[in-house]
Amino acid sequence: MKFTCNTEALYEACINVSRAISNKTNIPVLEGVLFKTTEQGLSLTGYDLDLGIFTTIEAMIIEDGEIVLEAKIISEILRCLEDDKVSFETDSRNVCRITSGVSIYNINGMGTEEYPELPYTYGENDIILNQKVFGDMIRQTVFAVSLDDARVAHRGVKFEISHGDIKAIALDGYRFAMRHEMIDYKGEDISFIVPAKSLNEITKFVTDDDGMISLSPDEKYMRVGINGYNIVSRLLDGDFMDYKRIIPTDFETEVHIKSSLLLDKLQSMAILADDRIKSPVRCTFKDDELFFNINSKNGEADTKMDVEMTGAEIEIGFNIRYLSDAVRASDGDKIKMCLSSPIKPVVIKPLEGDSYFYLVLPVRFRN
Amino acid sequence: MKFTCNTEALYEACINVSRAISNKTNIPVLEGVLFKTTEQGLSLTGYDLDLGIFTTIEAMIIEDGEIVLEAKIISEILRCLEDDKVSFETDSRNVCRITSGVSIYNINGMGTEEYPELPYTYGENDIILNQKVFGDMIRQTVFAVSLDDARVAHRGVKFEISHGDIKAIALDGYRFAMRHEMIDYKGEDISFIVPAKSLNEITKFVTDDDGMISLSPDEKYMRVGINGYNIVSRLLDGDFMDYKRIIPTDFETEVHIKSSLLLDKLQSMAILADDRIKSPVRCTFKDDELFFNINSKNGEADTKMDVEMTGAEIEIGFNIRYLSDAVRASDGDKIKMCLSSPIKPVVIKPLEGDSYFYLVLPVRFRN
Repeated sequence: MKFTCNTEALYEACINVSRAISNKTNIPVLEGVLFKTTEQGLSLTGYDLDLGIFTTIEAMIIEDGEIVLEAKIISEILRCLEDDKVSFETDSRNVCRITSGVSIYNINGMGTEEYPELPYTYGENDIILNQKVFGDMIRQTVFAVSLDDARVAHRGVKFEISHGDIKAIALDGYRFAMRHEMIDYKGEDISFIVPAKSLNEITKFVTDDDGMISLSPDEKYMRVGINGYNIVSRLLDGDFMDYKRIIPTDFETEVHIKSSLLLDKLQSMAILADDRIKSPVRCTFKDDELFFNINSKNGEADTKMDVEMTGAEIEIGFNIRYLSDAVRASDGDKIKMCLSSPIKPVVIKPLEGDSYFYLVLPVRFRN
Repeated sequence: MKFTCNTEALYEACINVSRAISNKTNIPVLEGVLFKTTEQGLSLTGYDLDLGIFTTIEAMIIEDGEIVLEAKIISEILRCLEDDKVSFETDSRNVCRITSGVSIYNINGMGTEEYPELPYTYGENDIILNQKVFGDMIRQTVFAVSLDDARVAHRGVKFEISHGDIKAIALDGYRFAMRHEMIDYKGEDISFIVPAKSLNEITKFVTDDDGMISLSPDEKYMRVGINGYNIVSRLLDGDFMDYKRIIPTDFETEVHIKSSLLLDKLQSMAILADDRIKSPVRCTFKDDELFFNINSKNGEADTKMDVEMTGAEIEIGFNIRYLSDAVRASDGDKIKMCLSSPIKPVVIKPLEGDSYFYLVLPVRFRN
């Protein structure tokens, strides 16, 4: 293999495909980036058997070939090079000579025989949507996925597409998050579950511009095309809870509340929590005020804030982190909280419309 | 104890004295900040038996008293308060009621009976110098202190004051760093060794303004007065190497070299080091060029840069980190390197004068 290309473009591609590389692998070749000459230029691949990322950049190919180079070392070398052109040349012993300006590196690479083939999905009905919208769908749901290994399907976000409506859904038994969006999609109804880990990597490829993202799911994998990169993720299998039956419809109390102030107040209560997962905050909604109280081995704290409420007064306990996560993921200055009783979940929605929907189970108090 | 004061001033003081608090202590009371009313206002203290920090802030004292409050909790509470005034009130069971705006905290505090007395040094001949200069003296030497527990004295920076000249000296057996400065000091000649850990904390109190710092050392402790804070550090005992005998005087080669480029080049070689402590870089000074080479299990690399040199050509090996540390600590765009042989230390100095002086031992190659 022998090629010359732009140093910065190669560095950027190398860093991006390396996001798929795990340093926990037992397969040495998977600690590297696969460099391969193709008709389109130079392709780079990173893969950890669950997630693969590949791209192709412009290069002057002098001799075809392929090699695997350790991701960390090759990225650091490319970052340090001073010249804007870099040349790679491999020999029969997989030594790769990298020359750029006055610098020369001779790196021990690895053969590509053991590098596994990436599963590649050709979608019949690609799902195309705005990349920022897709990024928001992930951000607004992925925090609620389960961390419990026992329920594999719940470790991902379920996407459901029906009649041009795409829904993202995540739940972990204590809370539920849903975000939906209308898109231009004429294909068959489809649903698939993407691991949270893959989604978190995909969001790193989302830029601020108005570009599109394509999703091509099949039975086992999904390919995502975004800004010149192809990301292939394994999909999750198994039963996903039928969320429709947990959505409550009747409420006693509706509260409009300023998100940022609510988050500050919850944070100021969390200071005294013994263990933030388990120390609940007591919330009392009464006469257009929300009173907070927490009581733990560290002491006790009270504060309050103004809200706009209709309906009955109510006292209800929450896991501070679960409630904060939902409020933080909400768009807009204000949110709507819908409550029915101290033992029924609270629903958090936008003031208008139904673009997102969160449900958080309350925590019961002993007294 | 009962007082009211400005929330932000109390938060800042609390964060600053907390720098002396270790979370590795077995003495619960040392995990807290000591609050104490005094004639001057409210004093706050943090102490870990090696380093103590205290300050006094303005407060409206309503009732005298003292209490210890857990550093982390009290800092977080003060950070979250929305009102610019805060009141503290303690009861006989060491519960501290903190009220500010609509928020009320009742925190379990600790009694002060077991809080150890800080050793306080009243200097007869306080050493007064510009705080930025003192900050530079620390920064330019502290990296070279020994991490070896066996030679306790070398875990600190030695300060020597003689005839108005203050020297800071650190060494670890592989390198030596010295910085000196003329100051207005009429006291007796004195020397003392301050632990690196204390110096690193002291530098956090150095601001960009032209204020002064006072050092009051005695046999066992030093008190530092800076920007309203008093910092008391234990001093180190034991033999400090007589550095004067290791300073070479004759050199074969003098090189003027651009510091930032040298650092970049060393960094670009370090990528291939197996273990950055031990993989040396080979430096060849020849015909106004400096050639770099490294060879490790990862591969081999070469690069070069222009220098200005006088004297004989020389090939010498260095620990990349030791050489980089010294170059990074140097002031000015360019430094002067003085070399005599592949087995004798290199000396790094400013182009003019002798404000700093570094010595790094070479690494011998096997071949």
